Amino acid sequence: MQAGPQPTDLSDVRATNRAVVLRYVRTHVPCSRADIAAHTGLNKATVSSLVTELIEHRLLRETGLTENRVGRPATMLVLDGEPYAALGMQVSADELVVVAVDLGGGRLLTWRRAFPALSASPADTTAAVARLARRAVARVGAQGRTVLGLTVGVPGLVDTAGTVPLAATLGWRDVPFTADLRAALRGPGFPVSVENAANLAVLAEQRHGGWADATNLVHLTGGAGIGAGVLVDGRLLRGGRGFAGEVGHLPLEPAGPACPCGRRGCLEALVGLPAVVRRLLPDAEADGTLTDFAPEVERIRVLARSEDRQTLAGLTALGRQLGHGVAVLADVLNPEAVLVGGHFAALAPWLLPAARAELTARTLAPDAGGTRLEPSTLGGEAAALGGATASLAGVEAGRLPVPAVAAG
Amino acid sequence: MQAGPQPTDLSDVRATNRAVVLRYVRTHVPCSRADIAAHTGLNKATVSSLVTELIEHRLLRETGLTENRVGRPATMLVLDGEPYAALGMQVSADELVVVAVDLGGGRLLTWRRAFPALSASPADTTAAVARLARRAVARVGAQGRTVLGLTVGVPGLVDTAGTVPLAATLGWRDVPFTADLRAALRGPGFPVSVENAANLAVLAEQRHGGWADATNLVHLTGGAGIGAGVLVDGRLLRGGRGFAGEVGHLPLEPAGPACPCGRRGCLEALVGLPAVVRRLLPDAEADGTLTDFAPEVERIRVLARSEDRQTLAGLTALGRQLGHGVAVLADVLNPEAVLVGGHFAALAPWLLPAARAELTARTLAPDAGGTRLEPSTLGGEAAALGGATASLAGVEAGRLPVPAVAAG
Repeated sequence: MQAGPQPTDLSDVRATNRAVVLRYVRTHVPCSRADIAAHTGLNKATVSSLVTELIEHRLLRETGLTENRVGRPATMLVLDGEPYAALGMQVSADELVVVAVDLGGGRLLTWRRAFPALSASPADTTAAVARLARRAVARVGAQGRTVLGLTVGVPGLVDTAGTVPLAATLGWRDVPFTADLRAALRGPGFPVSVENAANLAVLAEQRHGGWADATNLVHLTGGAGIGAGVLVDGRLLRGGRGFAGEVGHLPLEPAGPACPCGRRGCLEALVGLPAVVRRLLPDAEADGTLTDFAPEVERIRVLARSEDRQTLAGLTALGRQLGHGVAVLADVLNPEAVLVGGHFAALAPWLLPAARAELTARTLAPDAGGTRLEPSTLGGEAAALGGATASLAGVEAGRLPVPAVAAG
Repeated sequence: MQAGPQPTDLSDVRATNRAVVLRYVRTHVPCSRADIAAHTGLNKATVSSLVTELIEHRLLRETGLTENRVGRPATMLVLDGEPYAALGMQVSADELVVVAVDLGGGRLLTWRRAFPALSASPADTTAAVARLARRAVARVGAQGRTVLGLTVGVPGLVDTAGTVPLAATLGWRDVPFTADLRAALRGPGFPVSVENAANLAVLAEQRHGGWADATNLVHLTGGAGIGAGVLVDGRLLRGGRGFAGEVGHLPLEPAGPACPCGRRGCLEALVGLPAVVRRLLPDAEADGTLTDFAPEVERIRVLARSEDRQTLAGLTALGRQLGHGVAVLADVLNPEAVLVGGHFAALAPWLLPAARAELTARTLAPDAGGTRLEPSTLGGEAAALGGATASLAGVEAGRLPVPAVAAG
C-alpha cells in the first residue's frame, strides 16, 4: 500500500464531519451549533443535521445553558456522558489495572489488582484479565452504560493480528492473546483488542498528559519491561509489523550485565525495575524472587529522601544510563519530549538530573534537539488509560456506535 | 498544533482531486478519462473538468492513442513531459551532484562535479552549488523548460527555517544555507529549499528505488557522514525540530575510536567513509588528507574481489558494526527495509552478510522484525534525485505551477 492523495467519498465525508463536530465539542465544551459552524468551517445546515444525529445516538446532549451575548440565546451542547463507557487494561509486572472512561475521557473507575504477571502462565494471566474485565463491564453496565470496547496493553511485541510473538519480561512466546481473551470473555458484544503497552501509554499522554499539544512525543514505560510508545506528527509509530519502539533491548553497554534475553548491556538489563531493585536493595531478593515491586520502590524513595549516599550515587549512575538510552531516541526520533513512566517517574527527582545531562551530552543536535525529558504525570496506569482512550477511537472517527442505539 | 480530523474546504477538494488525477495518470500511463473515473471514484464530469485544466497548464497531454476494446475509442492521457523540470542537488564529501527530472520523474540530466566539500568553507560551497545550479537551470531552460523548484540535500541538521545548525562532517555550524543560496542565485524565480540529504534519499527510494511499495522505509546514507532518512506510513519522519534520523553519532561502542564530534565509538567513527578507508587502506592518507574517496573505494573493491584476507576480515568487522547500528533502527522504527547507500552500497557484497547476521542477532523481534537490509539501487546520487522528487511535491499536491502558464 502506497500513501498518497485519496479521493473523497461521501460517506467518509459524513463520518469525518461527525468526527470534526465531536472533537470540537470535546475541546470547547459547552458550545452552540453556531460556535461549531463558525470554527470548523462546516455550514450551519450541515452542523444542525450532524448534531441532531449525534443527539439521537446520545453522543451529544443539549444542556439548556445559554451564552450571554447579543442576539437570541443559543442552546449549548456537551458530550453525552451517560450511555457509554470505554475500557482499557494493562498487564504490569506485579499488577493488573483496569480503567473505564466516558466519552469525554472522564474517569468512571480505576481498579488496580495485585497479580504476579512475571511468574504466571499466559493462560492464568488471560483468565485473570478476563475476570477483572467482566467485573468492570458489570460495574459500568450497572450504571446503564454500553461498553464501546476494551483495549489491553501488554509489555511486549504485538503483531497486527493481535498475537504476542514475544513478551520477554512475561516469558511469553507466540501467545494468541487477543483470540484467547475474546474466548475467555465469551462473546462480549464489544470489540476487544490488544496493543503494546507503551503505545497505549503515549496515546494517554496525548489525551490526558502534560504534553497534550505535542505531536512528536515518546512515552518510555518504566517497569520490568521498558518500551517506547512513539507519536510522529500525532500518529502512532508502528512500523512494518507493529514492533516499533522496542527499546528495552537496545544494546547500550557491550560489556554490561547479562540480560535475560541472552545479550549483554541492554537498556532493560541496566535500568529495568528488577535491575534497579537488585542494584539499590541488594537484600531485596533474600527471601526469593520478587512479585511485588511497589514496596521496594518506596524503600528506595525513603532512602533517597534521607540522602543515603550509596542510594543517591546508584540513582545518579542509573540516571546516566537512562539518559544514554533516551539520547538514542532523541537522535533517531527528535521528539519534543520523552515522558518516563513507572519507576522512572517515581524516582524522577533523583534519576532525571543525571539523565538530562547525559541526554544533552550524547545527542548530536544542540540542546538535545529540543527534546525534553520529563516524568509522566499519569501515574502507574498510563497504559490502561491509553487503552480506554483507544477504545474511543471508533466513535471519535465518526462511526456511530450501533449497539448503543438499541440501548439508548 | 494537535492532529485530528479536519473539515474539508472546497478549494482543498479541487487541489486534492487534481492530485488524485495526476497520480493516477503517473502510475497508470497511458489511461483514458474513463479509466480515471472508474478507478479513483471521481465522477466523469469532475474528471473531465480537471483534465481540461491540467491540459491547459500542460501537466497532462493527450496522446491520441486508443485502447482496443469494445465501444468508442478513448483519447489516452499521459503526463506532459515537455514544459517543466524539477531540480535536486546534493553536497557530498568529495563532489556536488545535480539531477533534473521531468514531471514523471524521467531523468533530464545528472551531473557530478568533483568538489572538496570537507575542506571548503560554507561560502565556497554555497558559491559552487549556485554555479552548478545556474548551469543546470540554463540547460533545462534551453530545452524550453520552466524550473518548478530546486531542493538541495546536505549531510547535516537542517532546521525548519532551512538553516544548518550543524553539519559535522562539513565543519558547518549555524550556516543560513537556504538564505545564502537564494542570495547567490539572485532571484531565481523558483522555490529553493534545503533538506537533510538522507531525508531526500529516502524520498528517492520511495519513488525510484526497488522498495517503492514500502511505506515504512529507511535509507542509510553512506559517505563521510551517516544519516537516516525515515518514512513512517509513507511520510517523512522529521521530529519536533526536523532533526530526526541523526544516527551518525549513535553511541555504539563506549570504548571505541574517537569521533571528531568529541565522543567515542559513534556509528560514523566506526563505519563512516573516512574510517573505512583509514582501516582498510592504512597508506591512503600518506600524501595528506583525502579529498576524493572514489578511487579509494575502488581500491578496496579490487582488494576484496582478489580475496585479500585482511581486507575481507576488515569488511566483515565493519559489516558487524554496521549491523549493530541498523539493529538500533530496527528496534526503534521496525521498518520494512533499511537501504544503504554510498560506500555501503559499493561494498555491499562484503559488508552485508555480516551486517545481516548482526542485525538478526541484535534485534529483539524475531527475524529482525521483518526488517530487510539491502543495498540501495540508486547509486551515489540518491539525495540529488530525492531533491528533484521533492521539487515536484507542489505540483503533485495539486497546486498549479503559476509561472509555467506564461511559458506554456
